[in-house]
Amino acid sequence: MSTSDSQFSIQCPLPFQSGETVQLAHGGGGRLSQQLLEQLIFPALRNPWLDCRHDGAILPTGSQTMAMTTDSYVVHPLFFPGGDIGSLAVHGTLNDLAMCGAQPLYLSLSFILEEGLSLETLRKVLESIRTATIESQVAVVTGDTKVVDRGKGDGIYINTTGLGGVPPGIKLGPQYVQEGDQILLSGPIGEHGIAILSAREGLQFETPVVSDSAALNGIVSNLLKACPDIHLLRDPTRGGVASVLNEIAQSAELGIDLEEDRIEVSEQVQGACEMLGLDPLYVANEGRFLAFVPPSQKSVALEILRSTPLGKAAQCIGQVTTEHPGMVVMKTCIGSTRVVDMLSGEQLPRIC
Amino acid sequence: MSTSDSQFSIQCPLPFQSGETVQLAHGGGGRLSQQLLEQLIFPALRNPWLDCRHDGAILPTGSQTMAMTTDSYVVHPLFFPGGDIGSLAVHGTLNDLAMCGAQPLYLSLSFILEEGLSLETLRKVLESIRTATIESQVAVVTGDTKVVDRGKGDGIYINTTGLGGVPPGIKLGPQYVQEGDQILLSGPIGEHGIAILSAREGLQFETPVVSDSAALNGIVSNLLKACPDIHLLRDPTRGGVASVLNEIAQSAELGIDLEEDRIEVSEQVQGACEMLGLDPLYVANEGRFLAFVPPSQKSVALEILRSTPLGKAAQCIGQVTTEHPGMVVMKTCIGSTRVVDMLSGEQLPRIC
Repeated sequence: MSTSDSQFSIQCPLPFQSGETVQLAHGGGGRLSQQLLEQLIFPALRNPWLDCRHDGAILPTGSQTMAMTTDSYVVHPLFFPGGDIGSLAVHGTLNDLAMCGAQPLYLSLSFILEEGLSLETLRKVLESIRTATIESQVAVVTGDTKVVDRGKGDGIYINTTGLGGVPPGIKLGPQYVQEGDQILLSGPIGEHGIAILSAREGLQFETPVVSDSAALNGIVSNLLKACPDIHLLRDPTRGGVASVLNEIAQSAELGIDLEEDRIEVSEQVQGACEMLGLDPLYVANEGRFLAFVPPSQKSVALEILRSTPLGKAAQCIGQVTTEHPGMVVMKTCIGSTRVVDMLSGEQLPRIC
Repeated sequence: MSTSDSQFSIQCPLPFQSGETVQLAHGGGGRLSQQLLEQLIFPALRNPWLDCRHDGAILPTGSQTMAMTTDSYVVHPLFFPGGDIGSLAVHGTLNDLAMCGAQPLYLSLSFILEEGLSLETLRKVLESIRTATIESQVAVVTGDTKVVDRGKGDGIYINTTGLGGVPPGIKLGPQYVQEGDQILLSGPIGEHGIAILSAREGLQFETPVVSDSAALNGIVSNLLKACPDIHLLRDPTRGGVASVLNEIAQSAELGIDLEEDRIEVSEQVQGACEMLGLDPLYVANEGRFLAFVPPSQKSVALEILRSTPLGKAAQCIGQVTTEHPGMVVMKTCIGSTRVVDMLSGEQLPRIC
């Protein structure tokens, strides 16, 4: 397929003030990130794939439908409890493919290395990439390495781009979300963000918080086989569960009702969040996902999820409603309700 | 397809000294770059695709064979005569696809932005990306944006990953190169590298040197239609014509004979190289390519190339020989011969 000029005909607007600069929050997954995409990047490049506002692209290629997704990883520090930038760069991109309903097939891998980086550090990261690709049965099929001057990078940045095959019949996206859809969450939240923060700031907890970073393609594949009518899958990475659900509510033009007591947060994450003034709903995850399933498939889906280690703590955390379209409303543990807004600004920079 | 553990079973060697660090030359396309790949990256990740030692991966996907390629762009400065990091990020990746014999279909686009970057700069780069994608009829189908702290980047880094369809019957690679193959070069060399260097260093020439950055997919498509038996295509980017020909000679285990007077270098590039102590054979190009063609197709191939603006100065610059396998030998303008070695170290950092 090729792209006609008309798909690019919309003029790029200039909504920002002259002299305004990029802020850390532009990369944080919250409102400023969304503004940057909606006001600058999407208008400049719009086409039917970008219009889907998903992390990956569904590509018709001959007899097989392919998904392609890309992410650059700039996590700081490079190593953290439960993973490192290498495993994260594999898991994150595989998970984006899984969220497209795709079976991951191929990865590309591109490094931006800072002059002065220890080769031993690079080796450790490569070992980690290798282990992650073996575990998830995906191949790095092409790559690139650039080096930048000392002080123009931060050790290692990695881009991975993934390609996967989408089984026939799978249709996932905010446009398929319906009133009554049950919202399943595969496990406890906030572990990745807190693990990064504790490694970065040298925080000591009695029991260390370990990142949930993991490849979700296996569990998602099982889920889709049992419940092919799932309407949407999404991994709550940057910006956490709250940001992702707000994006979905806005795209689907439907409301979302959550029940706080169904959203599992470990004691350690809860404690760390209280100490640091963070809300776990906005903290990043790298091995959890949300599934929007028709009510009739809720029980089967939960059973499938709970039968695997990655989904053993899966819960139904809420449902889709025609009330308050575009908004996420949570019934709190003390019985009140509150609006869960999209995060404005940056909560935790460089967590992936 | 999936990847069995055995494909990853080779242990990653540790050929480097403890404490050795990444140097700028590791990203420069010369010997140190090759060492990094051969001693660290390929052993860690080896599989049949990486074993091909090409810039892109040929992917069987159902009825259509796809090519996938990735590059991160860290060019400094962001804007230079004849282009900018945005157009370069499109051209460079499209050209890698073209060198696989593929018709570009899809691009992914990932930014690493530095805190404090002017949005106007980003907008200009996006406009440039858009223009380049329209001109070459390719779509950016997925993307990502990260922001790093001030002083941890250099304005904008871009990764593009490309996916293209390979027409049936096309077989390109060093393993197909044969004795007697004629080596065609599509135009004058060194313009990109000198344009970058002049912009970076604020050098003034009487006539400014403009980068040759251009998308080669159109000209390559025409060439392959007329001469489907071409054995190898390669674009001489980082490290220039000399480095690329050395890589090919080594991979093919054959020798290469060059004729210096057939290799066109503009007066301005020649003058700049003399002033700067550079050899144009090692200076980067971003809109030129080399084609290894059977002797019977030389005339047709040259005719096709010369009929298009990008190839109007195409020349046959040499041929493949069984003499001196692995080496590139050049007959100079004054009648002597000299070995054209692989560049050791860094000639021009961050030219793409």
